[in-house]
Amino acid sequence: MSEQRSVDAEPRRATCAADPVHRARAYLLGAAEPPAPALVAFVARHGPVEAAERVRRGEVPDPVAQETEARRGTDRSERDLERAVKAGYRLLTPEDDEWPAWPLLSLEVATGRGAEGVAPPLALWVRGTARLDEAVDGAVAVVGARAATEYGEHTAAELAHGLVADGIGVFSGAAYGIDGAAHRGALAAGGPTVAVLGCGLDAGYPAGHVGLLNRVAERGAVVSEYPPGALPARHRFLVRNRLLAALTAGTVVVEAGKRSGARNTSSTAGTLGKVVMAVPGPVGSAMSVGCHELIRDAYATLVGSVSDVLDTVGRLGEPRADTAAPRPRRPTDDLGPQALRVHEALGERRGRSPDEVAEESGVPLARVRAVLPELELSGLAERCETGWRLAVGVPGRVKSSGRVTGKGERHPRTR
Amino acid sequence: MSEQRSVDAEPRRATCAADPVHRARAYLLGAAEPPAPALVAFVARHGPVEAAERVRRGEVPDPVAQETEARRGTDRSERDLERAVKAGYRLLTPEDDEWPAWPLLSLEVATGRGAEGVAPPLALWVRGTARLDEAVDGAVAVVGARAATEYGEHTAAELAHGLVADGIGVFSGAAYGIDGAAHRGALAAGGPTVAVLGCGLDAGYPAGHVGLLNRVAERGAVVSEYPPGALPARHRFLVRNRLLAALTAGTVVVEAGKRSGARNTSSTAGTLGKVVMAVPGPVGSAMSVGCHELIRDAYATLVGSVSDVLDTVGRLGEPRADTAAPRPRRPTDDLGPQALRVHEALGERRGRSPDEVAEESGVPLARVRAVLPELELSGLAERCETGWRLAVGVPGRVKSSGRVTGKGERHPRTR
Repeated sequence: MSEQRSVDAEPRRATCAADPVHRARAYLLGAAEPPAPALVAFVARHGPVEAAERVRRGEVPDPVAQETEARRGTDRSERDLERAVKAGYRLLTPEDDEWPAWPLLSLEVATGRGAEGVAPPLALWVRGTARLDEAVDGAVAVVGARAATEYGEHTAAELAHGLVADGIGVFSGAAYGIDGAAHRGALAAGGPTVAVLGCGLDAGYPAGHVGLLNRVAERGAVVSEYPPGALPARHRFLVRNRLLAALTAGTVVVEAGKRSGARNTSSTAGTLGKVVMAVPGPVGSAMSVGCHELIRDAYATLVGSVSDVLDTVGRLGEPRADTAAPRPRRPTDDLGPQALRVHEALGERRGRSPDEVAEESGVPLARVRAVLPELELSGLAERCETGWRLAVGVPGRVKSSGRVTGKGERHPRTR
Repeated sequence: MSEQRSVDAEPRRATCAADPVHRARAYLLGAAEPPAPALVAFVARHGPVEAAERVRRGEVPDPVAQETEARRGTDRSERDLERAVKAGYRLLTPEDDEWPAWPLLSLEVATGRGAEGVAPPLALWVRGTARLDEAVDGAVAVVGARAATEYGEHTAAELAHGLVADGIGVFSGAAYGIDGAAHRGALAAGGPTVAVLGCGLDAGYPAGHVGLLNRVAERGAVVSEYPPGALPARHRFLVRNRLLAALTAGTVVVEAGKRSGARNTSSTAGTLGKVVMAVPGPVGSAMSVGCHELIRDAYATLVGSVSDVLDTVGRLGEPRADTAAPRPRRPTDDLGPQALRVHEALGERRGRSPDEVAEESGVPLARVRAVLPELELSGLAERCETGWRLAVGVPGRVKSSGRVTGKGERHPRTR
């Protein structure tokens, strides 16, 4: 997110109906239902202006004809571009500086390898203040169930907030539930957040998120490859998912039911060589079942925190606070196994002779005699009239009452 | 768990102070702090009776002397065996039919490969009605934090209950928290459950679980390699963990804090070639952090249900109900991608012409004309005066209000 690029002369108003490339790509976006691999290849070969002209005239190879036949007669590009200028959004094309070429390359590569359903977009409609090429830098997608639980929404919001606070943009799909919580959490941290839609930018979908989408546009961007007027449809959500996967370094699934699109999201991201992560939850929660399946079947890496996500997507940078910080230590941490056994054979009050300690601990007497003064030096044991005992104020061994003797840190909670 | 073996003539009362092998092994158990690899090898070579005699006289190689020097002068074997008969428990030795030789072989193999701290036990003190060789058959260890949460205890109890109901014995360590919940859940399902202790059977530890241990003995067994009178100590819990791992097909960690013995449990089980499983929980719970670390770092497989556990330990048998049962289906499940797009392009009330449908869906008109009658045959579309529309009572596409049109099942909750 270099300051230098941000001072470009208003790149976010570059849309113009008079620009033949923009006109051509706006027409092409409307001429085929994405993903349209044959059309994309055709455009790559002939350039958008010539390709658009040929599509209009129907002078195209069969596969392109199949993709464009139903809509090629309708050209709403001029209307769409004019409406976009009025409504404050823009058409972003591969010819523009702001085009996120690098992340979208994953779609080209995968399509070139024969993967289906992951052709790159011909252009993107964008509404918002953020430059898309900058917003994608290191970004992470946070997505999940629409019928999310309170736990899921809370976790998504916290995660998104933490990621943005750490300089990572959060992408999502603007749906109810997890997506909305992710956008809200990101906004609460000051953005940027980007919503990628499965319908036109003017669809007002979902109805309850119109205000949220306005705020996303103010702090980030709302993006779609569907032309204005395109209605939301189930297959479009799946097709949209390839953009979420491609534009980000990894996708976090926060909650997903048993029969969910999570497996689809994960498989698309995997096809594009992107990381898939999933957040665990209570095993009784139906909304965590999909996440647990992804983790269990090794389709996703478990993440429970911002630093888990950063570790997983492999961000370079300073070490995380919680790995750099030493874990809490016990005074006995440096003792070897025999010294530990000697230490645990000591009593709290009554001193024990080295013989008694040897028998209780099973450590040879000679070794006990060597270890006891070492423990004394470490402040873990002390001499008294009747022999050796635990030093006052040091954690002792477990008593049969089940409580821990002495002060200081408790024994480990699991064995 | 063959009926045939259970009718043996009271094998669970075989302990007798007059038996020289039992006397020798009871002495040897007290003569060295487990695990005692040199002594175990020495006994394997010379037999328990001769080995015990030589240890008593100090005529042993150096490594054995190191292990036995401190305690060899104390022989409480006669007292221990007599007390055991009175208290209703028994010494189980490798010479006994009931010895769980096969699972414990994993300890021998690992020790033979040079692994440290996993020498097999010289014998086991056992209290209870179950035959140990039968109780280990396919058994699973369910363990975890002492400072468990309500969620953790509930999950442990449910899991143990379900495993026992499915014919799987549940082993644990009788500690407060997860261990106790696991035993209780197993008992509620009628047992068997086995507690493996890190102290003598008479230690009354933990104090609050004396009644629970009595019930475990009634329905299963309480087991320890520590002689009567041996006190609980931290290192003994770790040493005991190798027995829990060896005696079972796999270990489930239900809850574990950040600094916990879970990693130790997992590494021991790994050394023995046993499966480690961990239960996820809410990401905000400190008591799930250890489990999430194990799963994230691939030390453990995520399990959220009894069937997950059974799948993971690889039990043979009839297919699980929830994999055998078909998942809920939608009427549109069998539609190809184009048919799905055509279907989603239909309206609820107003009929649309094939041209309109072709344009909305982006599917070529010829294909739309072929698909519409197919949808009609499947009951998904119907003709009306103005064209084609969704059949009444069939789920429609997503409306921009965000709700789902039509009746029947909802759209998938995640994309």
